[in-house]
Amino acid sequence: MRKVSSFSKLSKYEKISWLAKNFLYESPVDVINNFAGFWYENVEIQKQFDGFSENTISNFHLPFGVAPNFLINGKDYVIPMVTEESSVVAAVSNAAKFWMERGGIQAKVIDTQKLGQVHFFFQGSPEKLKIYFQNHKSELIKSAADLTANMEKRGGGLLRLDLLDMTHLEPNYYQFKVAFETCDSMGANFINSVLERLGSEFRKMVASSDEFSPEESIEINMCILSNYTPDCLVEASVSCTVEDLGIVNGFAPQHFADKFTKAVRIAEIDVHRATTHNKGILNGIDSLVIATGNDFRAVESCIHTYAAKDGQYRSLSKAWIEKDIFHLSLKFPIALGTVGGLTSLHPLAKTSLQILGNPSAQDLMKIAAAVGLMQNFAAVKSLTTTGIQLGHMKMHLTNIIAELKANLEEAKQIETYFNDKVISVSEVRNYLQKLRDSISPKTI
Amino acid sequence: MRKVSSFSKLSKYEKISWLAKNFLYESPVDVINNFAGFWYENVEIQKQFDGFSENTISNFHLPFGVAPNFLINGKDYVIPMVTEESSVVAAVSNAAKFWMERGGIQAKVIDTQKLGQVHFFFQGSPEKLKIYFQNHKSELIKSAADLTANMEKRGGGLLRLDLLDMTHLEPNYYQFKVAFETCDSMGANFINSVLERLGSEFRKMVASSDEFSPEESIEINMCILSNYTPDCLVEASVSCTVEDLGIVNGFAPQHFADKFTKAVRIAEIDVHRATTHNKGILNGIDSLVIATGNDFRAVESCIHTYAAKDGQYRSLSKAWIEKDIFHLSLKFPIALGTVGGLTSLHPLAKTSLQILGNPSAQDLMKIAAAVGLMQNFAAVKSLTTTGIQLGHMKMHLTNIIAELKANLEEAKQIETYFNDKVISVSEVRNYLQKLRDSISPKTI
Repeated sequence: MRKVSSFSKLSKYEKISWLAKNFLYESPVDVINNFAGFWYENVEIQKQFDGFSENTISNFHLPFGVAPNFLINGKDYVIPMVTEESSVVAAVSNAAKFWMERGGIQAKVIDTQKLGQVHFFFQGSPEKLKIYFQNHKSELIKSAADLTANMEKRGGGLLRLDLLDMTHLEPNYYQFKVAFETCDSMGANFINSVLERLGSEFRKMVASSDEFSPEESIEINMCILSNYTPDCLVEASVSCTVEDLGIVNGFAPQHFADKFTKAVRIAEIDVHRATTHNKGILNGIDSLVIATGNDFRAVESCIHTYAAKDGQYRSLSKAWIEKDIFHLSLKFPIALGTVGGLTSLHPLAKTSLQILGNPSAQDLMKIAAAVGLMQNFAAVKSLTTTGIQLGHMKMHLTNIIAELKANLEEAKQIETYFNDKVISVSEVRNYLQKLRDSISPKTI
Repeated sequence: MRKVSSFSKLSKYEKISWLAKNFLYESPVDVINNFAGFWYENVEIQKQFDGFSENTISNFHLPFGVAPNFLINGKDYVIPMVTEESSVVAAVSNAAKFWMERGGIQAKVIDTQKLGQVHFFFQGSPEKLKIYFQNHKSELIKSAADLTANMEKRGGGLLRLDLLDMTHLEPNYYQFKVAFETCDSMGANFINSVLERLGSEFRKMVASSDEFSPEESIEINMCILSNYTPDCLVEASVSCTVEDLGIVNGFAPQHFADKFTKAVRIAEIDVHRATTHNKGILNGIDSLVIATGNDFRAVESCIHTYAAKDGQYRSLSKAWIEKDIFHLSLKFPIALGTVGGLTSLHPLAKTSLQILGNPSAQDLMKIAAAVGLMQNFAAVKSLTTTGIQLGHMKMHLTNIIAELKANLEEAKQIETYFNDKVISVSEVRNYLQKLRDSISPKTI
């Protein structure tokens, strides 16, 4: 058993050497060279990358691309996107240009409330607890004043503190549900600090109060923000007359609009389709989220929970035709920051925010909604007209051809041959080998 | 309006120059240098990164770290993890070591079925359609034989083809629900190719059949895999006697086990907590998914949909004590590949798979479940004992100190001062400035 102690205390070179010896069975020099190839040249900046996480030995490169021609609420944008999935940036760019020529995208923030919870257990009378809470609520909030002061200066802070009786679900279980405004920061650290304070103060208050017996004590189970923020909500939409859609991939406008709205309807009623439909929307959103140094797991968990809010997991977008106007709209909750966290620490995240004109968190929410909407339009458009494989496979084949270092003539033959076949690296490699084998006699 | 045409056809330098001029208002040379700083030194390899996506101008660096001391089904692993979130790798590593010393993690794959759908509309008698489908099902499957042949050689292929009548939800709407086994590949391209073939063939078959009138035609709406694969399921678990848990962050074993199981129970019954609980699990899983070149949006959408399967979004993990044994287990669906796609194209993804001993897709599912489980143990452990902020803020402060280039003495003072305060870059910068202002007279 290759157990290792105090691994985190080893130097980067020692970590890699240990890995080379115990798990890669290659010479440490080769392994170090492999990982070092991905290091940033400037040692100080590389140290910063290393510091973002732990046991860091290299940087994983994800393609950083841009999608131009976004028109959101009358302002034009280029969207920085980080994604390893081919055709997402191309699809989003095409859709953005299509809608730029039709008045652009409308986006609005509906609300910006973040949430946190203090989960605790209380052995005693629920009524007494509720009355005590109501009587001491402002005192409790004041106990966190030193933590909230700065956020209040920026226009945010603690908005609401509620006590929830959860004892019908679990014996003695109560919850503080706390709403926050965190302005341009995602607010995780702020929220968690305040929650931990509220939890420990309330426990102390109850313990030292004459109103409770020693048996009527509080045990804090945990204090933590919730990534599900259904009231941190944004909406984006596009519309134009059906006629103005024009001929789309060979489909007449009315026919296209009909197929499109049906496809979105299917994602509303069918869970299996909804998952993939929303996955596509998140292909767009996450690309922006990563590029701006935000946390995509937080975004994913929030949006998917929201998609399931009525008891069935459903499409986030809606499409309809009303009085000859085609509409597509998308609504979801998302908590993003444009200050704090990695947004100001990661050099390319800073650049991404510059490309976007240093937006506020609310602006970034709108941009995210616009990118999600454009992905959705592009994906449903291709699915209902040409099919998804045409573009996908073309991109994938181009990557494989590059990987196999085929020359121009070979590339052409590969493209022709695989036009109607399932593409994989091994299939293309075999075909290329055959091609080269069959050609070699002539070239001697 | 800064509209641009044929942007994708510009060279990388031209793209960056356009961006510099129109959106960054900086000298193109500076902007090119900024982006070029992140390029891979070897031009051929950089071309490959550029080819993964579109309009690519740079690489976004995410820290690549490793978590040692995983013992899964008796075999030891080091886990490659790509995450920008501090303390995930540290937490997972600590939890893995804790459980390595208590028999390790048990993991098993329950099933590996992938799914795809052909969505179509049929104007005509449902009964006639169903009978026709049953009579021609094998013929239809055979029509995709050239596409499935290779996958069948590898032990996979099309497993099941069902016709679903969805007309109770939407007029004339039917669906083929198709189950696949895709062996070590994630299978997206394979599944989509087969579905598109099934759809177009069935449409043609019905159109040319004497049994249907010309009005009784089929319109294919779309053919696409489903990312929701509830039967591609894996499970991981740990257990030990309560006593063997030992003293955990100052808590006696029984007390810790009690708080821990309550915290997991809360995530089962409360949606707001469940989202964050599962988000944490995905912090672990996604790190591995990205490191191995898999698609994290696919993984996220599938797992979150599964978490909402019974009508309320709930915890993926369960914890309980039975006859003095503490149990923690985690079950979720996940479709991963270890061949095909980016797994073999991204150089560091290949290295990740080597570090894991070139696992099969089923092995990788088990490893993903183990990583998710360890994250969950670590997160709930810290939440219910020390609180999440202690570790988080320490990491965050270290990053900020590095960013602000504080010296060792300043760093110490910063750490002491911010011990009980909310941390942000601007707060730390202000404090550091005050520190330097107050010191400067002495240093003259």
